[in-house]
Amino acid sequence: MKFVLAPDSFKESLTAKEACLAMERGISRVFPEAQCVLVPMADGGEGTAEALVDHSGGRMLQAAVTGPLGKKVTAQLGISGDGETAFLEMASASGLELTAKEESNPLLTTSYGTGELIKLALEQGVRRILIGIGGSATNDGGAGMLQALGVSFRDREGCELPVGGGALRRLHSIDVSRMDARLKNVAVEVACDVTNPLIGPNGASRVFGPQKGATPQMVEELELCLTRYAEVIREQLGIAMADVPGAGAAGGTGAGLLAFFQAQLKKGFELVSGFTGLEEKMAGAEYVFTGEGSLDGQTLFGKTPYGVAQMAAKQGIPVIAFAGRVGEGVEALYEHGFTAIVGILRGVEPLETALANGGANLEFAVENVCRMIQFYQIKLG
Amino acid sequence: MKFVLAPDSFKESLTAKEACLAMERGISRVFPEAQCVLVPMADGGEGTAEALVDHSGGRMLQAAVTGPLGKKVTAQLGISGDGETAFLEMASASGLELTAKEESNPLLTTSYGTGELIKLALEQGVRRILIGIGGSATNDGGAGMLQALGVSFRDREGCELPVGGGALRRLHSIDVSRMDARLKNVAVEVACDVTNPLIGPNGASRVFGPQKGATPQMVEELELCLTRYAEVIREQLGIAMADVPGAGAAGGTGAGLLAFFQAQLKKGFELVSGFTGLEEKMAGAEYVFTGEGSLDGQTLFGKTPYGVAQMAAKQGIPVIAFAGRVGEGVEALYEHGFTAIVGILRGVEPLETALANGGANLEFAVENVCRMIQFYQIKLG
Repeated sequence: MKFVLAPDSFKESLTAKEACLAMERGISRVFPEAQCVLVPMADGGEGTAEALVDHSGGRMLQAAVTGPLGKKVTAQLGISGDGETAFLEMASASGLELTAKEESNPLLTTSYGTGELIKLALEQGVRRILIGIGGSATNDGGAGMLQALGVSFRDREGCELPVGGGALRRLHSIDVSRMDARLKNVAVEVACDVTNPLIGPNGASRVFGPQKGATPQMVEELELCLTRYAEVIREQLGIAMADVPGAGAAGGTGAGLLAFFQAQLKKGFELVSGFTGLEEKMAGAEYVFTGEGSLDGQTLFGKTPYGVAQMAAKQGIPVIAFAGRVGEGVEALYEHGFTAIVGILRGVEPLETALANGGANLEFAVENVCRMIQFYQIKLG
Repeated sequence: MKFVLAPDSFKESLTAKEACLAMERGISRVFPEAQCVLVPMADGGEGTAEALVDHSGGRMLQAAVTGPLGKKVTAQLGISGDGETAFLEMASASGLELTAKEESNPLLTTSYGTGELIKLALEQGVRRILIGIGGSATNDGGAGMLQALGVSFRDREGCELPVGGGALRRLHSIDVSRMDARLKNVAVEVACDVTNPLIGPNGASRVFGPQKGATPQMVEELELCLTRYAEVIREQLGIAMADVPGAGAAGGTGAGLLAFFQAQLKKGFELVSGFTGLEEKMAGAEYVFTGEGSLDGQTLFGKTPYGVAQMAAKQGIPVIAFAGRVGEGVEALYEHGFTAIVGILRGVEPLETALANGGANLEFAVENVCRMIQFYQIKLG
């Protein structure tokens, strides 16, 4: 019997790999001979670098980089086991969670630290960089990131612009001549589940600005900044960015990655499952087990278990999803490849206890699902 | 497909019948054509009368009876749908939970109210009385119960003894001439899972006295009382009670029931499953679902799900057990007919919420087990 184990992390309880291992223990209690294929998964958001490092037997580097408001922060960079690929999460260097709510100000926040992480990746000699750009605190079009990699953004007087989305209003010229040359030989792939354009009513500033601390006046100011940014890119680089789907992701970082690095934007699940080879690994599996800390109606919107279930359904493989919380609207999942949904809690307990017991609870729930499977395996001979 | 649904109650959340109905709803979401046989179960303890009333389409009567310390309490009496059988729980009239902890005193507590309930049953014209005797506050050998039904317990002077276990020390003679004559035509069956004798180191006073509030001195006094009780019964009725297994149940009420009513003592599960015809109903079932509020290592000691699983195992039917709490040591159940054990909680929530959501949670968990079953049903054709 072959089981493919493709969970996301159980937030604050288990990494995706730990979830895989708990599932494997549960299975082996019932089917000690079963083949378990462990595929720690992620959706391009938090935990993606860790899952891909774990998947590829790689390592995680830490680096002090410039945080969204200039203070140094410690960010993570994953390197695959073969040293060919770097994994990075923008939130780790330029994330909203790195700034206090009252100080967050997207006129000032910069993606500079993300550029420093990319530079560190280049120094490791990778040929491919996978970036998750969710959760950023920025609205600077990725200009800070590009500055860290040698691109100059200048005003009418030829002076380098300061960092922060608000400075782009004065953008007059862009100089890419000193951009890190190693980028030419590196493929950049971006996990991006949003399709917002850079500017306009569905653009970065208007849709995502407010959640990053922008007041209505700041939103309008930021809109003018990114409009100017798009104009200069179009005039000087000959690239029309304003309406490209995904250009508005992460405060316009999507645009920066597309225009300067010829990055490929992909759905987070596709990027991760492509890297892990999940689809091929499913071939011939009797069961696919997935899961996440919480499952609910929102799971349909690009979360890992949904992607896993869709993929397995194509191959006619049943999918059991496990979760610590099985929330409202989860019934919708039955129509989308989920065979069954299993809550893993063993009783009423405080959240901290439930999080601490996540591995044991998942193992137990998986074991008992396997016991039901076993009954039919015997019946089927 | 035939499912037999034989849960106990989920304490403070669902009666056994409500648990059956929740299970049925879960099944019907996946297998609308399935045959569900609802057998609300109990183990002879709390909820037994309710389960048997629900099973037989009967009714529950309420009556004001004498509580363990003389105050009136409202007790329950179940009557089966055909009017032939009464169901009563001693705890309802003479239970430890009816007395405040500080006032509980087994020298004084009486089983009188239980006798009043039996009298009420006789007035309903039943032919059979099923009694659960767990949880009593008494240590009076069932003398109070017998007094309520016309038996006289007298001292050397021929005066009627007062109620309470402590009075039996002065017992000199027993007069059964005015015992309610209707008892002759009624079969009394007692749900009793303990095998303690009336007296001695494993007897009622020494083993159960302390948990009913007896101090060490009171225990020794009560031991002398029940010893005297056994002596007089042996001398005047010619019945040796001291060492009979189960005579020590419920503070010696076992002895009273055996000696005066020729009652049959049975394991609680056997009594209930016998009445409900559970074993015959299992014939031809694909699945048996059981459950209880809490499952753990203690479940092996006479709890309903254990009895259900043992019974189903004999017929080779898989058993899935559902519980709100899946506690320590539950792994031992796999060796005793349990195919799988499923916790029904959907997330971390306060106890009150979990109890309030019991029906919906059970329905959801059952539905998802059925979805797994469905996968194999399709595979099996």
